[in-house]
Amino acid sequence: MGRLTGGDPSLLRRINATVVLRALRSATDALTLTELVRGTGLSRPTVEGIMEGLQVAGLAAECADAPGELRRQGRPARRYRFCAEAGHLLGIEIGPHRVSAVLSDLAGARLDRAERPISEQAGAEERLELAAANALELVSSCAVARSTLRAVGVGTPGIVRADGSMRLSTALPGWTGLPLGERLRRTFRCPVLVENDANAAVVAERWQGVASGCTDVVMVLAGLSPGAGSLIGGRLHRGFGGAAGEIGALHLLGREAFPERLLSTTGEPLHPLDEAAVAEVFALARSGDERAEQAVERFIHRLVHDVAALVLALDPELVVVGGWAAGLDGLLDPLRTELERYCLRPPRVALSALGEDAVAVGALRLALDLVEEQLFVVEST
Amino acid sequence: MGRLTGGDPSLLRRINATVVLRALRSATDALTLTELVRGTGLSRPTVEGIMEGLQVAGLAAECADAPGELRRQGRPARRYRFCAEAGHLLGIEIGPHRVSAVLSDLAGARLDRAERPISEQAGAEERLELAAANALELVSSCAVARSTLRAVGVGTPGIVRADGSMRLSTALPGWTGLPLGERLRRTFRCPVLVENDANAAVVAERWQGVASGCTDVVMVLAGLSPGAGSLIGGRLHRGFGGAAGEIGALHLLGREAFPERLLSTTGEPLHPLDEAAVAEVFALARSGDERAEQAVERFIHRLVHDVAALVLALDPELVVVGGWAAGLDGLLDPLRTELERYCLRPPRVALSALGEDAVAVGALRLALDLVEEQLFVVEST
Repeated sequence: MGRLTGGDPSLLRRINATVVLRALRSATDALTLTELVRGTGLSRPTVEGIMEGLQVAGLAAECADAPGELRRQGRPARRYRFCAEAGHLLGIEIGPHRVSAVLSDLAGARLDRAERPISEQAGAEERLELAAANALELVSSCAVARSTLRAVGVGTPGIVRADGSMRLSTALPGWTGLPLGERLRRTFRCPVLVENDANAAVVAERWQGVASGCTDVVMVLAGLSPGAGSLIGGRLHRGFGGAAGEIGALHLLGREAFPERLLSTTGEPLHPLDEAAVAEVFALARSGDERAEQAVERFIHRLVHDVAALVLALDPELVVVGGWAAGLDGLLDPLRTELERYCLRPPRVALSALGEDAVAVGALRLALDLVEEQLFVVEST
Repeated sequence: MGRLTGGDPSLLRRINATVVLRALRSATDALTLTELVRGTGLSRPTVEGIMEGLQVAGLAAECADAPGELRRQGRPARRYRFCAEAGHLLGIEIGPHRVSAVLSDLAGARLDRAERPISEQAGAEERLELAAANALELVSSCAVARSTLRAVGVGTPGIVRADGSMRLSTALPGWTGLPLGERLRRTFRCPVLVENDANAAVVAERWQGVASGCTDVVMVLAGLSPGAGSLIGGRLHRGFGGAAGEIGALHLLGREAFPERLLSTTGEPLHPLDEAAVAEVFALARSGDERAEQAVERFIHRLVHDVAALVLALDPELVVVGGWAAGLDGLLDPLRTELERYCLRPPRVALSALGEDAVAVGALRLALDLVEEQLFVVEST
């Protein structure tokens, strides 16, 4: 009958349903029962039973005949497809200057994104409410029912506990101690995963960005709260206490100052410290402005220090530079030159392909991982 | 009959032999056939057959009756024990100032150690020959037959390729490119594993030192060629290109000088830069010598910089400080204080328990791992 004989019949049914669902999902087109039987090695009655169950669960649907398809003699072959629209996922970034969200279907295809600015000084409640409101408005504006949310991923600066609460966050006022996951679970009424922002960003770059196919990656997220996320052997390296890559203090070691001072061309700290302001300093430097040239040199010197320390410790295949440094293409050549000087085995260096979307997209990918584990779980026997 | 039914009969025999060997090895005392039958769940004829095979292979031996044991009626019960003396292992360190070796039996129990000094300027051939000669003399002096060597582990500074050749070593003249593993395999006529010295040292501290029971450890090996070895989730983290922890350049990032200058009390570089010389500077500082105090302060500042960079990148549970810094107990308190300042989640800090033996003992443990994999291999089914 099935792929397995004996054992727990409900487990067997679940494994068989998983096999069918995977086949449906990976197919580029709708499949007939005959194709499913052939592709899965299951019997026709088994596949028929599973397809009924998947249709009841809303995960598979029978297609109308493809347009122009000729009906042969007898009844036409029924065709089934995976219902990516049966569920939705949110990826949310909660940062120092803004909150943002991306919405996708069950296949991870993006429907839309939304963001709102927020003050660095805003309190935890205000920030949390704005993040939730921004995401819920995105869901409404896409005409998606809130009840179809299967999971929400959140990326935010700081050290996150396994239960989704914030162990420590120096970048956001009132954030330390916040039960962020629990609060958002109440809002969204589905599983909520909370991850450090740089960790989410490196996951995003591997999924849809410049780290595609790489297993050993360090991503440096420049910004008000500089941090790094690392993949080792394809898996997130969070560290023993979740603090891996919290390199905010590295510049103190190198006796350097904070980025808003490094990048200042006026003697006053650069404010606001965002991608546009930083890009302006870089443009000024390219046009020959001496103070801007010095500012860029100071900034690159610090970035090299941070990146080199990470590279020497971890020896990654690839370093991705993101945050508001992304898009600043004047950065890469000096960074490469300096890494060649300091590292016995210099890694490749690339700018983030996802730019300001990296954190939210990575949070979405982590939510999708959770849902896929649930949909496609096969217990090891 | 056996634990498995059907399948490859030679595989089945091997699995059963492994089960019996494990039982023998983990027992504190010799075991009777009846005890082995009870402990393994195998049949008596199966255990008898396996014991014959293990005796032929020299891995098990029948014991004489224990002294004072009374013979009951009938023939006495035969007792068997694991023959740890059936094979031997070497752990070798090849460093800038010395070569050393430790010898153990198949159970990892140490028989003896030996070391020889060598000049930092010695060429690769001279260093290799001295390392081999020192180890072979150790084997002879313990009255062990060279033919009983089952594996040799080697720890040495630099980046090691998977085939045991040196990809890069800046610390030892002529070392880069040397096919170290292959050369020593010809000498010892058994498998030779080559590992970075700091990686070997962290393995040693976990086996017999201060990192016992820890899974996330960074070990900093201070010395002429400072380096670090890391365990992540209990496994060595070698990095994408084998260069993880090659932090020799970190002090350049912090605009610091080399340790022989940092620790100088005369204006001239400290020479030789070994544990005794460094201990003398620390003792002078404790006695109130101002220049020595300044030297120690410079040295600690640099060590904190290196360690903090590693800790921020990796977030380990424990940092172990070894190399010639080991035993210098004045180091730990300032290191802890500084890490508390810089790290969001400061790790525990400890001095190496194995001191100058750490690299050779770690190399021995890696050789033992290899042999145990071979002796106790059970294929996953």
